[in-house]
Amino acid sequence: MKRSKIGQFRAALYVQLEPKAWGYGLSPLNWIICVLILLSFITAVLETEPTVSAGYETVMRWLELGFSLVFLCEYVARLWCCVESRQYKSALLGRLRYSMTPAALLDLVAVLPLLMGLLGVQTLLLRFVRLLRIVRLAKFGKFSRAMHHVVLAISSRRYELSISMAIAVSMILLASILLYLVEGDVQPEAFGSIPRALWWSVITFTTVGYGDVYPITNLGKFFAGLTAIASIGLVAMPTGILASAFSDAMQKGRVEEKKYGLYSSKNSKID
Amino acid sequence: MKRSKIGQFRAALYVQLEPKAWGYGLSPLNWIICVLILLSFITAVLETEPTVSAGYETVMRWLELGFSLVFLCEYVARLWCCVESRQYKSALLGRLRYSMTPAALLDLVAVLPLLMGLLGVQTLLLRFVRLLRIVRLAKFGKFSRAMHHVVLAISSRRYELSISMAIAVSMILLASILLYLVEGDVQPEAFGSIPRALWWSVITFTTVGYGDVYPITNLGKFFAGLTAIASIGLVAMPTGILASAFSDAMQKGRVEEKKYGLYSSKNSKID
Amino acid sequence: MKRSKIGQFRAALYVQLEPKAWGYGLSPLNWIICVLILLSFITAVLETEPTVSAGYETVMRWLELGFSLVFLCEYVARLWCCVESRQYKSALLGRLRYSMTPAALLDLVAVLPLLMGLLGVQTLLLRFVRLLRIVRLAKFGKFSRAMHHVVLAISSRRYELSISMAIAVSMILLASILLYLVEGDVQPEAFGSIPRALWWSVITFTTVGYGDVYPITNLGKFFAGLTAIASIGLVAMPTGILASAFSDAMQKGRVEEKKYGLYSSKNSKID
Amino acid sequence: MKRSKIGQFRAALYVQLEPKAWGYGLSPLNWIICVLILLSFITAVLETEPTVSAGYETVMRWLELGFSLVFLCEYVARLWCCVESRQYKSALLGRLRYSMTPAALLDLVAVLPLLMGLLGVQTLLLRFVRLLRIVRLAKFGKFSRAMHHVVLAISSRRYELSISMAIAVSMILLASILLYLVEGDVQPEAFGSIPRALWWSVITFTTVGYGDVYPITNLGKFFAGLTAIASIGLVAMPTGILASAFSDAMQKGRVEEKKYGLYSSKNSKID
Repeated sequence: MKRSKIGQFRAALYVQLEPKAWGYGLSPLNWIICVLILLSFITAVLETEPTVSAGYETVMRWLELGFSLVFLCEYVARLWCCVESRQYKSALLGRLRYSMTPAALLDLVAVLPLLMGLLGVQTLLLRFVRLLRIVRLAKFGKFSRAMHHVVLAISSRRYELSISMAIAVSMILLASILLYLVEGDVQPEAFGSIPRALWWSVITFTTVGYGDVYPITNLGKFFAGLTAIASIGLVAMPTGILASAFSDAMQKGRVEEKKYGLYSSKNSKID
Repeated sequence: MKRSKIGQFRAALYVQLEPKAWGYGLSPLNWIICVLILLSFITAVLETEPTVSAGYETVMRWLELGFSLVFLCEYVARLWCCVESRQYKSALLGRLRYSMTPAALLDLVAVLPLLMGLLGVQTLLLRFVRLLRIVRLAKFGKFSRAMHHVVLAISSRRYELSISMAIAVSMILLASILLYLVEGDVQPEAFGSIPRALWWSVITFTTVGYGDVYPITNLGKFFAGLTAIASIGLVAMPTGILASAFSDAMQKGRVEEKKYGLYSSKNSKID
Repeated sequence: MKRSKIGQFRAALYVQLEPKAWGYGLSPLNWIICVLILLSFITAVLETEPTVSAGYETVMRWLELGFSLVFLCEYVARLWCCVESRQYKSALLGRLRYSMTPAALLDLVAVLPLLMGLLGVQTLLLRFVRLLRIVRLAKFGKFSRAMHHVVLAISSRRYELSISMAIAVSMILLASILLYLVEGDVQPEAFGSIPRALWWSVITFTTVGYGDVYPITNLGKFFAGLTAIASIGLVAMPTGILASAFSDAMQKGRVEEKKYGLYSSKNSKID
Repeated sequence: MKRSKIGQFRAALYVQLEPKAWGYGLSPLNWIICVLILLSFITAVLETEPTVSAGYETVMRWLELGFSLVFLCEYVARLWCCVESRQYKSALLGRLRYSMTPAALLDLVAVLPLLMGLLGVQTLLLRFVRLLRIVRLAKFGKFSRAMHHVVLAISSRRYELSISMAIAVSMILLASILLYLVEGDVQPEAFGSIPRALWWSVITFTTVGYGDVYPITNLGKFFAGLTAIASIGLVAMPTGILASAFSDAMQKGRVEEKKYGLYSSKNSKID
């Protein structure tokens, strides 16, 4: 059956737009979109810095408008092309079902700043979401496999990691209660309540240690020292758990690959 | 043998209260108790923050009284029901023996703030202990197994971890002696004695680094730099030990499960 | 075939200069060169410290000139000798090909400060490059093997490490956007734009925590606390990945050694 | 052959003093000595703190004299008893050889503060050395085995750890050169020379981050951010190496134990 010229164009566009249809690596069109996403994000970041954006406010607003329009076109194109896939064949229902997939919703979110910018709403976080679309597009074989390993490792030890997190939270709470009792009267601004002492406790346990608050009494320093030493365990436990998890996950991953021939370099062009 | 209505109620209550009797997951009653424990703790924490509790002091005192009374009722109920278990069958001696178990003592501690609050004693730490009761109640199958792994991993390497701790303590002591000798005369307030230098030493070794004290002489900075570099080993050693420990513990755990069918999802309702 | 005296000298010099020709360990001449490289670097470092170099400026300039001349002689000698190797036998073309090898180019860079010093250009970074020549010369068998393990471990997990790095960068960006939105108006100097908030975000995530900027609002402290806790994962993930990678790399390395007899202590004198 | 009363006493004293002769655990006499060593160290530490030692200077000097005399008696006793061992049987030569063993020299060092205190020399570091004697005495079976594992793990990866240390030192040097070039003119006090920038570099790389010096220019902050991110690798690499090393060391250790029956709980009373 010969297809019309528009049909041929739609099929070609579909292969360009859909990572699964293109197979291995990024298609030229998706490369351009990824670069535009990055540029759009960098523009959004630089826009906030007055020493850079001063005098270029109008330029940047137009740039942002341009990026948003491109993403809008991309969204419409994806919606138009999606019927090429067997999954979403029906012209209306297929497109509706496609537009409800997480990937399509993510693409929609990338267009939202256009609308919200017109309404004068802060759109920075939405523009950050656009970055996630790079992940959606860049389905390189080897990165997918590595991502699979990382997810496998973390999820296989989710209970151990939860327990290590629960122990950490308990110790952070205990340390803040102790320091509140010991230093609360001496430094009411910093340790005058448990929520205030919590700030110190978290910053000390994670070994960030800004130095904006620290104990000054001898007993407070003693407990703070114990807290600091306990923080070694706080880091060592999840690290140890993850280390053993990655060992297992990679062995499992290798076995799976041999068994099912997953992640083979040969990918069919159309899913 | 037909049981009286009270007997039937006691049996039902026992299943609700005793995690082992309920089997997998949390019973509805224990869910409520866990939420109350959390609420009681959050109330205790917020009570200490004047900007939050201002004007609500009476409300919070009544809340705390309410929580304590609920926990008192719960304690009495547990004591009344415990004879349902085969272990504590005898009406008096069984209950006495039950009340001496760590779990029952922990429940008793949760009631203590009621009494001590009347006497005007600081009860914050006791209220923190209440949080531990969540651990006692939440005996989810998968968390228990993970907890088993964590305990197995740490206990199987307790000697290696002790040695790594001993090396760490020695290095902390050595660093504080060196800095005391080098900087003691220049900064008497910060390094004028070994106990004072210890504060710097612990905060540097654990890489917290508040910045309230730091060496200013060249020799002091040299030793402090060495201390900071040595701190990498301080973190790397226990982490490495724990990483290998978790690998072993999980393999052992898996073997045990296969052998003895531990942690199977089928649990008998009455122990 | 009897060689001329100059030919014999060139052959002897070649064995002294070329690590592969000498075989195991460092030849006496290369020992001297390594020491000179170190001395040249230490001179360059001390030259920048006015309290040390004051009054010795001329001495240090002459020292630097001396080191550079020695390295020039060494470069010329290496170029003269390289034809002893089978690879670069031809007098002109062999030498030209040798001078294009990375090792020879590195040696040339070590001579450049001589020229650039005459032109008055800052040469500190070039002198730092000289240090790399120690790595080129010190091809000890056991260090090479260890280096092989390290490279194998890192490269075998490059995708997993990239993903962990991508997650880290995303979280750093997200934290900086959040803090910019929350603290931007309160502390415009520190959080007034995303690039400014990025500085805080990187220093917090890596747990360095200078304390020059930190949030002061309650919401800002809440997000900063979450950021600090997330930083544990930032360290734990690559560490866990590397831990499992080193386990694998060393096993592979051992298998390879047994198979191919790599890194055997017997090395032929001339490659 | 019946031994004289003095001979019997010497034999009994030898068993009390010599950890190998006592076998498993600490003998009562060595327990007392360990406690005295700890007390002597604590006295030395507290002596330096004026708010504690004020008014007790004479008491503390007498205490120190007492401890030193006890350690002197102990040293003489050990020298007298050592001939009970087969190794040092000869009355004069055996004792001389014994006095040259590292253990005996360590005991001698513990006595030195007595002499040097009379001469008015600073003896703090020597008193710290006394703590090491606890290690020499406390040869518990399980700790020895764990120590064996730790030493085995670190020594089996000494080349990999050296390389990771060399990479770390190179990055610290590079960071200090970059910051010196970028910030040298702006903050001459903190970055005016490479040795000064090194202080910043070490404190940042090890994530201590006191905050006494930090970059203020944009380019300086950029390089400092890169340095901070690179520091994650600095910690992750040795940790990963050690983690795989401990896995191997414990497997090897277990194999050795099965093979040679090392560290069995049955120890002969006299070596």
